[in-house]
Amino acid sequence: MASYKAPIRDMQFIFDELLQVDQYEALEGFGEATKETRDQILEESAKFCESVLAPLNKIGDEHGCVRADDGSVTAPPGFKEAYAQYVESGWPTIGAVTEFGGQGLPHVLTLALSEMVSSSNMAWAMYPGLSHGAYSAILAHGSQELKEKYLPKMVTGEWTGTMNLTEPHCGTDLGMLRTKAEPNADGSFNITGQKIFISAGEHDMADNIIHLVIARIAGAPAGTKGISLFVVPKFIINDDGTLGARNPAVCGKIEEKMGIHGNSTCVMNYDGAKGWLVGEEGKGLNAMFVMMNVARLGVGLQGLTQSEVSYQNAVIYAKDRIQGRSLTGPKNPDGPADPIIVHPDIRRMLMDAKAFNEGARAFVLWTALHSDLLHLSPDEAARTKANDYMALLTPVIKGYMTDKGFANAVNAQQVYGGHGFIEEWGMSQFVRDARIAMIYEGANGVQALDLVGRKLGQNSGRALQTFLAEMDAFVAANKDDVALAPFVEGLVTAKSRLQEASMWLMQNAMMNFDNAGAASSDYMHLFGITGLAYMWALMAKTAAPKANNSDPFYATKLKTARYYMERVVPETAMHLAKVKAGSAAVMALSADEF
Amino acid sequence: MASYKAPIRDMQFIFDELLQVDQYEALEGFGEATKETRDQILEESAKFCESVLAPLNKIGDEHGCVRADDGSVTAPPGFKEAYAQYVESGWPTIGAVTEFGGQGLPHVLTLALSEMVSSSNMAWAMYPGLSHGAYSAILAHGSQELKEKYLPKMVTGEWTGTMNLTEPHCGTDLGMLRTKAEPNADGSFNITGQKIFISAGEHDMADNIIHLVIARIAGAPAGTKGISLFVVPKFIINDDGTLGARNPAVCGKIEEKMGIHGNSTCVMNYDGAKGWLVGEEGKGLNAMFVMMNVARLGVGLQGLTQSEVSYQNAVIYAKDRIQGRSLTGPKNPDGPADPIIVHPDIRRMLMDAKAFNEGARAFVLWTALHSDLLHLSPDEAARTKANDYMALLTPVIKGYMTDKGFANAVNAQQVYGGHGFIEEWGMSQFVRDARIAMIYEGANGVQALDLVGRKLGQNSGRALQTFLAEMDAFVAANKDDVALAPFVEGLVTAKSRLQEASMWLMQNAMMNFDNAGAASSDYMHLFGITGLAYMWALMAKTAAPKANNSDPFYATKLKTARYYMERVVPETAMHLAKVKAGSAAVMALSADEF
Repeated sequence: MASYKAPIRDMQFIFDELLQVDQYEALEGFGEATKETRDQILEESAKFCESVLAPLNKIGDEHGCVRADDGSVTAPPGFKEAYAQYVESGWPTIGAVTEFGGQGLPHVLTLALSEMVSSSNMAWAMYPGLSHGAYSAILAHGSQELKEKYLPKMVTGEWTGTMNLTEPHCGTDLGMLRTKAEPNADGSFNITGQKIFISAGEHDMADNIIHLVIARIAGAPAGTKGISLFVVPKFIINDDGTLGARNPAVCGKIEEKMGIHGNSTCVMNYDGAKGWLVGEEGKGLNAMFVMMNVARLGVGLQGLTQSEVSYQNAVIYAKDRIQGRSLTGPKNPDGPADPIIVHPDIRRMLMDAKAFNEGARAFVLWTALHSDLLHLSPDEAARTKANDYMALLTPVIKGYMTDKGFANAVNAQQVYGGHGFIEEWGMSQFVRDARIAMIYEGANGVQALDLVGRKLGQNSGRALQTFLAEMDAFVAANKDDVALAPFVEGLVTAKSRLQEASMWLMQNAMMNFDNAGAASSDYMHLFGITGLAYMWALMAKTAAPKANNSDPFYATKLKTARYYMERVVPETAMHLAKVKAGSAAVMALSADEF
Repeated sequence: MASYKAPIRDMQFIFDELLQVDQYEALEGFGEATKETRDQILEESAKFCESVLAPLNKIGDEHGCVRADDGSVTAPPGFKEAYAQYVESGWPTIGAVTEFGGQGLPHVLTLALSEMVSSSNMAWAMYPGLSHGAYSAILAHGSQELKEKYLPKMVTGEWTGTMNLTEPHCGTDLGMLRTKAEPNADGSFNITGQKIFISAGEHDMADNIIHLVIARIAGAPAGTKGISLFVVPKFIINDDGTLGARNPAVCGKIEEKMGIHGNSTCVMNYDGAKGWLVGEEGKGLNAMFVMMNVARLGVGLQGLTQSEVSYQNAVIYAKDRIQGRSLTGPKNPDGPADPIIVHPDIRRMLMDAKAFNEGARAFVLWTALHSDLLHLSPDEAARTKANDYMALLTPVIKGYMTDKGFANAVNAQQVYGGHGFIEEWGMSQFVRDARIAMIYEGANGVQALDLVGRKLGQNSGRALQTFLAEMDAFVAANKDDVALAPFVEGLVTAKSRLQEASMWLMQNAMMNFDNAGAASSDYMHLFGITGLAYMWALMAKTAAPKANNSDPFYATKLKTARYYMERVVPETAMHLAKVKAGSAAVMALSADEF
């Protein structure tokens, strides 16, 4: 059976040495997140994830969620107990604001914990994951009354949350939504309509489920301007805080899916369910975007998590499975064959994953640190930069990291040969689970279009210029350091191509928007590879002075950095060429010609 | 639900215009395969596949195969009846030799039929598919007695066949196999051992199952030299041809797999089962390679088939699903949104698949034609060339086409957005089914190593030189044709990079075999892209004079050729760079550092 070991050492390297988060100790929450506290939290979380959540992963896949005729849903065996333990230990409170009972620790730290939870059990992780998105939307846009009513128990994890956007006929194009909200005299609304693909929509793990639902208030204009956001609790909250009437917000069906069987993906039927407006009328999409941006980073992280856990298992298998001989002579001469980790093509797949995992981990945490700075930094320039980066990098992290996460899980499965295809070994589940991350929270094509169509041009391209300038500054500062030459060179290659592609888009996409669309996916990948190249350059610089330490961690880090520059960065040549190929050939066929 | 429409028009284009198979009418079998006969066969086969097999595809996935306590296995509902109809109609006999009841039609024609069968129902297609491999091995290596005993009913399809190679501890490295063969006084052997991953190993669709099993005769040397091949029937054949005793060759378990649920993947327990030697003692691997090469082309074809059928469904969905607006203004102004086929990134995924499908179809049939010429051509040079091409291209077709087939199925699923992840729509099945083709019959890493480690160097590289020279001749003959300029140019780009990568391997892999291993997968992809580029250049030349025909087929073909050259050929830059990056970074880590 598959197993999981939290990469604590690598996380410590990122916190302590790469990001040096101690430098922010003056900021709220960072002061409490001392090295000692961080390490303790990482270690405790690792224990829980490795010993409680990871063993439930396959059980969740095999059992799935079961819906009874009354619409109630039972999560897989052990899920409810694990969640109770999670709540009991106070894990949901770590990153939440102190005002509503949270510990107020930095976002960058909670993302490391989220990685562990999702690596050990992605389907389970989505229950608290969606709750965090719902919490964020209420916190950002809800009235004080709503916050006081809902947030304390969402912070403790006693209640979970959901996001209700998609309807059968509309996903990306939410302007077409039909769910209706009829105002009541008491200021509440009656919500009626059907939502689909609602993750964690109904289950038995928490006392209450707080649905965040977008709907159109009667008389509101068509399109996205008529959309408002509502909080619709499964059980209505009485004035004394106890749970009251069951709202007619019912799971009509659980979808049969390719993966994440342990999460209940529900068709939710709202039949005059009572809801309360979050934020302003007609501003529902704005409020929803708070949730979606939280969720998009979380989904990008899922790409990393399935890559990481499948990689770990592939490494174990590759060291254990003996088959054939090394091309350069036996490495296990006393055995009947060599372990397959001697084979270069096995190495290629493992190194691709390792180089991605460590680079992506750094990239996500580096970005999450900016989200902390966005809220906490006293420096306006730092806040502006952080805001720019969050906007620019969220679609890259979501799209690039989930595409690569899936590809790496497929490679890890490939390392197992025929055994990878047999469910017993657990590799198929990693692939099937990883697949959804490319689709939900905005399919990766939508992320790519968000990147080239919206984010690049905002504020006259300021965010991209800042990011390019930051890399240029690194290159300028380190170009004479011989030890760093291969890393600086690799970064320059990637960065130059990203710059060239960006220039091409500026010159060619304004006249013909199809050029932006046709380039979008390759541009997003080019961006992702460059982002990770920057992380690898930073990590190489951090590790280089310690390359001869007795702890081999630093020497390994440098070797992996070198692999990234030599074997991953060349992919940028292909993406640049595809960007510059333009849209003519892509759009040449009439629909009938397909 | 997913559907399938056989691409008859495209197949006719390849047979009639591209390969011009009528030119071979003097060869055995080709004379009978007139245009009229070919069309009739294609159309009849299409009807059967579209109306009988395709509707069973999802049923097979949902029901899977069921093993009873006595080891008997029931195929999914409808599978047996469809197979009876298939046998009744004489389909299995089409390509089989006339000596044993076949119709002796060309291999190139039967591969087109295999494509249809596998596109409509890959799991079902494997029952007759494996039979054909077993038939081929007996035909090539069996004694006349064995042939007369087994082949007639294998040709009609009354009996099916299997290949038994893998054991729990050995797959790629067959030298480690443990299954034993003890000689009996009557010349037969008692076979004892366990085989795993035996496709179609046990089922209720045929009267008898002819297992081909590799085993080690008592006293035979260790390693591959001690391996012999045996025919082990489920029911022993009496002298009068009737079925006799049940052989103790029993399905011990059906594996739970990621896909191809409709095919019974069995653990087969041989407990002193009676078997008869096929070919010479100790030459079992040679005999098995006949089967494996047949099977590898068939598996490569599976990559195409899942790409084709998933593409077809994605096209239907992309025309039907309305969501958002075209970047260049509404294309469906009277509707609430445009069909998603207007979006460039949707186009990119569809065009990638379309350009692959048509190129890969041509490549497989072009290669299959060489396998006919290998057996039938009176011209020794043609036979030598055919033999060289079969050896060189088999691993390319198997490895490249299954990697791409899977990637295209994933993209087709992506076109469906969230619905792609729901089993109801059938796209998940295409992905799950396509996944196995990258693994079995030699994982794609093994194919890549076969290509660079064995096939490239055979006869001092003659096969590759012949292939490069053939492309050079095309370029020389067409370089002044303005209408063909973009296609000649694209071919030159791909071919030059393949040549450069080959040169690099010659210069760098001899001194360090790890350089070959580290380059192998990228080299195989580079080869595959170039092979398809050659096909697209040939197709463009064939279509160009008819570009203004009233039949839009030819104009579409040229547009798709252009897409291939502009948007697929650039991938060769990445593969070449990775090849030339060498193995140092790939092999830098000790096993402990992973």
